[in-house]
Amino acid sequence: MADKPASGEDSLIARYFRPIATDANAFGLVDDAAILRALGQDIVVTTDAIVEGVHYLASDPPDTIARKALRTNLSDLAAKGATPAGFVLTLALRAADESWLKPFARALGEDARSFDCPLLGGDTVSTPGPVMVSVTAFGRVGEGKMVRRSGAKPGDRIMVTGTIGDAALGLDVLRNGAVAKALAGDPKGSDMLVARYRVPQPRNALAKAVRDHASSAMDVSDGLAGDLTKLCTASGVSAVIDVPSIPTSATAATLLSRGVVGFEALIAGGDDYEILCTVPEVSSGGLEAAARQAGIAVTAIGTVMAGQAAPRFLDREGREIALARQSWSHF
Amino acid sequence: MADKPASGEDSLIARYFRPIATDANAFGLVDDAAILRALGQDIVVTTDAIVEGVHYLASDPPDTIARKALRTNLSDLAAKGATPAGFVLTLALRAADESWLKPFARALGEDARSFDCPLLGGDTVSTPGPVMVSVTAFGRVGEGKMVRRSGAKPGDRIMVTGTIGDAALGLDVLRNGAVAKALAGDPKGSDMLVARYRVPQPRNALAKAVRDHASSAMDVSDGLAGDLTKLCTASGVSAVIDVPSIPTSATAATLLSRGVVGFEALIAGGDDYEILCTVPEVSSGGLEAAARQAGIAVTAIGTVMAGQAAPRFLDREGREIALARQSWSHF
Repeated sequence: MADKPASGEDSLIARYFRPIATDANAFGLVDDAAILRALGQDIVVTTDAIVEGVHYLASDPPDTIARKALRTNLSDLAAKGATPAGFVLTLALRAADESWLKPFARALGEDARSFDCPLLGGDTVSTPGPVMVSVTAFGRVGEGKMVRRSGAKPGDRIMVTGTIGDAALGLDVLRNGAVAKALAGDPKGSDMLVARYRVPQPRNALAKAVRDHASSAMDVSDGLAGDLTKLCTASGVSAVIDVPSIPTSATAATLLSRGVVGFEALIAGGDDYEILCTVPEVSSGGLEAAARQAGIAVTAIGTVMAGQAAPRFLDREGREIALARQSWSHF
Repeated sequence: MADKPASGEDSLIARYFRPIATDANAFGLVDDAAILRALGQDIVVTTDAIVEGVHYLASDPPDTIARKALRTNLSDLAAKGATPAGFVLTLALRAADESWLKPFARALGEDARSFDCPLLGGDTVSTPGPVMVSVTAFGRVGEGKMVRRSGAKPGDRIMVTGTIGDAALGLDVLRNGAVAKALAGDPKGSDMLVARYRVPQPRNALAKAVRDHASSAMDVSDGLAGDLTKLCTASGVSAVIDVPSIPTSATAATLLSRGVVGFEALIAGGDDYEILCTVPEVSSGGLEAAARQAGIAVTAIGTVMAGQAAPRFLDREGREIALARQSWSHF
């Protein structure tokens, strides 16, 4: 039997993904499995998939799709206080299209390097349906030190990184909605919003500070309002949020003040990939100092309350704002 | 704001997957991440996805789809000599259909228990396309003890567990091909082949023996011929296979002798999920004894040879058999 060229799938892996799988424990992607070393710590495992037409648009550039797939997982690791240790990738494709795969793999490799989170392995499968990118990412924390959703205590400050709502507004721009029309004269503003939708900025630089100071944490992926509710449920507490304190970008603030969007669009929109955490009063200074050093904004937006009631969102006059929806949900 | 019922996605997870996520480190699936403890060992990581219409048929029962998704990964762990430690699941669904999800989750929970491989976490997403089940599974091995593809040495025996080719024949039955017609009077035979296609029997009971005795190993998922070529390439060796020694079921043997199928259909067909390994002559007795104890057939089918040539497949008279294709490949 003559030497046979590698199959399409193997050749695809060899051409696009082997060059970025530089970690020794990935074995050049030629084995059935990779090795992950715990180094005496707990391994934190998280998995998040993005589907074409659901979590990103078919028109999104492949490099941003790669970054979004990895960064949504990195954001979970950051919120858990874990240091990235590696990831595996499952890629479901209709066809092996070089003009898509090349920038996808290059961007994935760049993010793997810059977040120090090596590609360890994966599976590439064909699908007649939409492209799907599923990532399982691993991080390390000291034994028993993963920051849970369930540690919030009455009196803790509720804090959030970055700004909230930009990604949801960016999706509206890409869909040519009201925000796109309102920002017709502000290409910089609309570009910023689109970038926030396409390429999350996970707050891994703040992981250690979250581990050191937060009583509970999660990343904001489905909308601040709904995610806060989940955190409160897991902790058995309630919360009061001062809505005007919720940090927004200048562009979002302008859209709010012009009445183009309401606060609900920002806090129920999703795709923020900021860290939502609760911090005992005595520790809030420590978190703020660490955030300043990391160059990441962190803002107090409310207080954890005793009880099982749903979180309350108050306006400038302290009146409760009724939210018709809290978050994005599949099904 | 009134209490809001859990979103569709959360409710789906709570109803179907929380009851089977009984491991303490899964945190009841209410956190962003799970904990995996290495217990001083190396973590072996493998990921395999199955897509409706590609890796299984849309008409396959949901319980077999769940088992196949998990067992294809368990098979990788077995071939690497690793003990199952847990898995995460990504499920892409068109709709939350109780009549599908209930048997799917129940079977997944049963397999997780019987293989001692707990569900640690997951992600459920909606898709307009085919259902996709992606599993990332974890195992433990002593430090540096994962059995690689790359350790085969000239003179080693090539051994394989179970029987080869049944799953490929089972797929032909489900597609109403030549095998279905030939077995019209043998429902037991055709049921056995279909079961082999739908529900792999991963050889985790042999993992320790593989670790103790094999110089290299992988699981046979894409066809024995192509997978052997991959193992030889990774090890920098060649091989000679005595084709009549390749173990077949009685049903497959009958189909072969009647000329319904040729050997190529069996060894290039895929979905076997048996272990292919190389064993130094001195260790083959040890592997055979362990296999007897585990009740798993293990058969010597050839010898590792020096050189870089593609593996050769010889017939009863020692003549080389030319294979038009070696394995299943996407793309």
